[in-house]
Amino acid sequence: MTLTSGYDFDQATSADRIRELDRSVFHSWSAQGSLDPLTIAGGEGSTVWDADGRRYLDFSSQLVNTNIGHQHPAVIRAIQEQAAVLATVAPAHAVAVRGQAAQRILSHAPAGFSKVFFTNGGADANENAIRLARLHTGRDKVISTYRSYHGNTGAAVVATGDWRRVPNEFARGHVHVFGPYLYRSEFWAETPEQESERALRHLERTIQAEGADSVAAILLETIPGTAGILLPPPGYLEGVRAIADRYGIVFILDEVMAGFARAGEWFALDGFGVTPDLITFAKGVNSGYVPVGGIVISDAIAASFDERVFPGGLTYSGHPLAMASIVGAIDAMEAEGVIENARCIGEEVLAPGLAELQDKHALIGEVRGRGVFWALELVADRATREPLAAGYIGRAKKLLLQRGLLPFTADNRIHVVPPAVVTADEVAQALAIYDEVFAALAREI
Amino acid sequence: MTLTSGYDFDQATSADRIRELDRSVFHSWSAQGSLDPLTIAGGEGSTVWDADGRRYLDFSSQLVNTNIGHQHPAVIRAIQEQAAVLATVAPAHAVAVRGQAAQRILSHAPAGFSKVFFTNGGADANENAIRLARLHTGRDKVISTYRSYHGNTGAAVVATGDWRRVPNEFARGHVHVFGPYLYRSEFWAETPEQESERALRHLERTIQAEGADSVAAILLETIPGTAGILLPPPGYLEGVRAIADRYGIVFILDEVMAGFARAGEWFALDGFGVTPDLITFAKGVNSGYVPVGGIVISDAIAASFDERVFPGGLTYSGHPLAMASIVGAIDAMEAEGVIENARCIGEEVLAPGLAELQDKHALIGEVRGRGVFWALELVADRATREPLAAGYIGRAKKLLLQRGLLPFTADNRIHVVPPAVVTADEVAQALAIYDEVFAALAREI
Repeated sequence: MTLTSGYDFDQATSADRIRELDRSVFHSWSAQGSLDPLTIAGGEGSTVWDADGRRYLDFSSQLVNTNIGHQHPAVIRAIQEQAAVLATVAPAHAVAVRGQAAQRILSHAPAGFSKVFFTNGGADANENAIRLARLHTGRDKVISTYRSYHGNTGAAVVATGDWRRVPNEFARGHVHVFGPYLYRSEFWAETPEQESERALRHLERTIQAEGADSVAAILLETIPGTAGILLPPPGYLEGVRAIADRYGIVFILDEVMAGFARAGEWFALDGFGVTPDLITFAKGVNSGYVPVGGIVISDAIAASFDERVFPGGLTYSGHPLAMASIVGAIDAMEAEGVIENARCIGEEVLAPGLAELQDKHALIGEVRGRGVFWALELVADRATREPLAAGYIGRAKKLLLQRGLLPFTADNRIHVVPPAVVTADEVAQALAIYDEVFAALAREI
Repeated sequence: MTLTSGYDFDQATSADRIRELDRSVFHSWSAQGSLDPLTIAGGEGSTVWDADGRRYLDFSSQLVNTNIGHQHPAVIRAIQEQAAVLATVAPAHAVAVRGQAAQRILSHAPAGFSKVFFTNGGADANENAIRLARLHTGRDKVISTYRSYHGNTGAAVVATGDWRRVPNEFARGHVHVFGPYLYRSEFWAETPEQESERALRHLERTIQAEGADSVAAILLETIPGTAGILLPPPGYLEGVRAIADRYGIVFILDEVMAGFARAGEWFALDGFGVTPDLITFAKGVNSGYVPVGGIVISDAIAASFDERVFPGGLTYSGHPLAMASIVGAIDAMEAEGVIENARCIGEEVLAPGLAELQDKHALIGEVRGRGVFWALELVADRATREPLAAGYIGRAKKLLLQRGLLPFTADNRIHVVPPAVVTADEVAQALAIYDEVFAALAREI
């Protein structure tokens, strides 16, 4: 495709040329010397293709963000049309599309939430949620779990010199606890109920030992994602809510990965009957079509800042293109029943299909998930649950790619995380590929 | 305008309706109870208009980011066309437009820079520059100045539990020094040369007192922006370079606000003959049309990560729409001589025009700047340099808006920061408005 705006997209379509250009790019989470990236030239729905025209079922959703699939026409159109009207505006001003995006999000939040603060992604959503919690409570410490990922920022405001530094030097007092994870329990538990009860006891004892009056927030992913799609056992999140209430602690649920159809719900928390005080989001809210994240803020916390200045902000807060893509994505998800599709695919296709794989392949130690948010825990030995060695995970990734499936791997796991618009047929194709690859892998081990 | 993508932009064009919608939005750096935001409905070049159709000369460039002006057609087209091809992709893959954007930026960087790491904005650009510096040197501390702004993130990676936390718990060892600012010297200096020499001595003594072996980075804005557009005096930045070399410290220049035409150069550092080890950017690189920032990395630091994993990353690193907007913006800036326009407007129109205002109005204590990056320091008394009270700055803002100029104010200053595409006629109109308002203000004081 030749673009008329002047840049030489046309010259760059060969895979070799793309890889050559890519050597000017410094890559995330990698050693730079030995990169061999897949080229991606385009996508549609649950499929992407590379620069040689080879097609892949995208069962990674990139970084678990393309919940509405690739190149959804309504979202693309919303971005293009907003670009024609107003591409950028400072956060201090009022623009229609920003309020509309906030209202779309609030319409799917629990009762008692009235404001949205927009950021550039999930990391700064959690940053600002922590800021809100510390200022609201006047307390310092933040409790989160070891098996978690909340973003990769941690110093810019401390490097800053002006007044905005002083109320924000808060990368201190971070305390980590273990969360529930029955398959590799840290609590010697044998049932989900026991795991839940003991994880709650561990959390509460840690809070007491730290001094409950010093704890501003408990920050949890509703379903820890990159850490392994760790579904909270029955009673756990309700128990955390009760502990937070008992000690006057702000309860933050990080829905960056779990929200907006991933778990078969608008917010994953809807599936657990729990209401936090702050909800952070990114990824699925607009499928990452424009960088954006944010926080849904409860009335009580929002009211804390009616008279007091909130000492946080960023140039691209509530960016018009991001806002248009949120409105477009949420409207399309509503109109097309994307939440219901994810839930139904989870219950009727992925749950039985992955269970069947587990029956056939001894290297699958556990299958867990809901919606389009599943993990296969690969083990060298089902009895000891020893994780499958990293080399075999790399090998599985290669074999899956060879067969036309773009996977998501983390530690000793394959995360089965297709777009929420995936069809039963596409899942059936993917299951057949996983089946073949696990059989091949077993022969190699 | 009615958008066909399904969202009700059409219903939202009245100013009242926009303000009603805006009550769902939590605003940056503000108390939320008393907001009275200007509505913005559209823009073109150096002009924006509100929902009532009232037009304003945008001498704020929003948050000093619309360097190429509002709605530049080539940049809008690049975004729209890239959206039609591929709106989102994970950073691990290689896409043509990302390499092209990196090469466009590198083509304007000093010699010895070969890689670009992309982020979502300026804050996480500085985050990752600090990360690179600490890992490259194996040292801990970061020295920056009190009069600075480097972003507002500071905790997410510490809240994170997984392995990515451990090499990143770096919001410690931040040391702040005073930078040069002759008008309000911290060093009892009377000439620019003296200010430069003494600020360098203060910096070096602080490094020695902290223990030079513990200092990873010196992080400075090339021209501190929000802090007051503080042009470094002769010899200062070269002197910092020499100190950094003497002690093996990484020198980071933050060009988030100063870069990409703002100071009448591609990078503001070009005007000072100094080459740092890392350059951070955002804002002007694509005029904020899509959220993006990044770091230009010197060969030596990039090579540190050939074999070693860089423990940083983010979902939207190298986002395709952001990359397209960078390519579109840089190409248009080259084709249209935007750098030269900014330099020429600065030298031939703003410098004499603002000096004339200072001659007429006693409340202007100092005028300083270059390119389209100027500050008027307003004082109650020229002899004592006592800052003009905040209430009068608010009043000036109101009077300027009434006369159709959208200003940028900070502390006791008005920053004169129009788009870099501003014309001599537009500057003349703005100067006339400032003149009127300062006269009115003087009558009120």
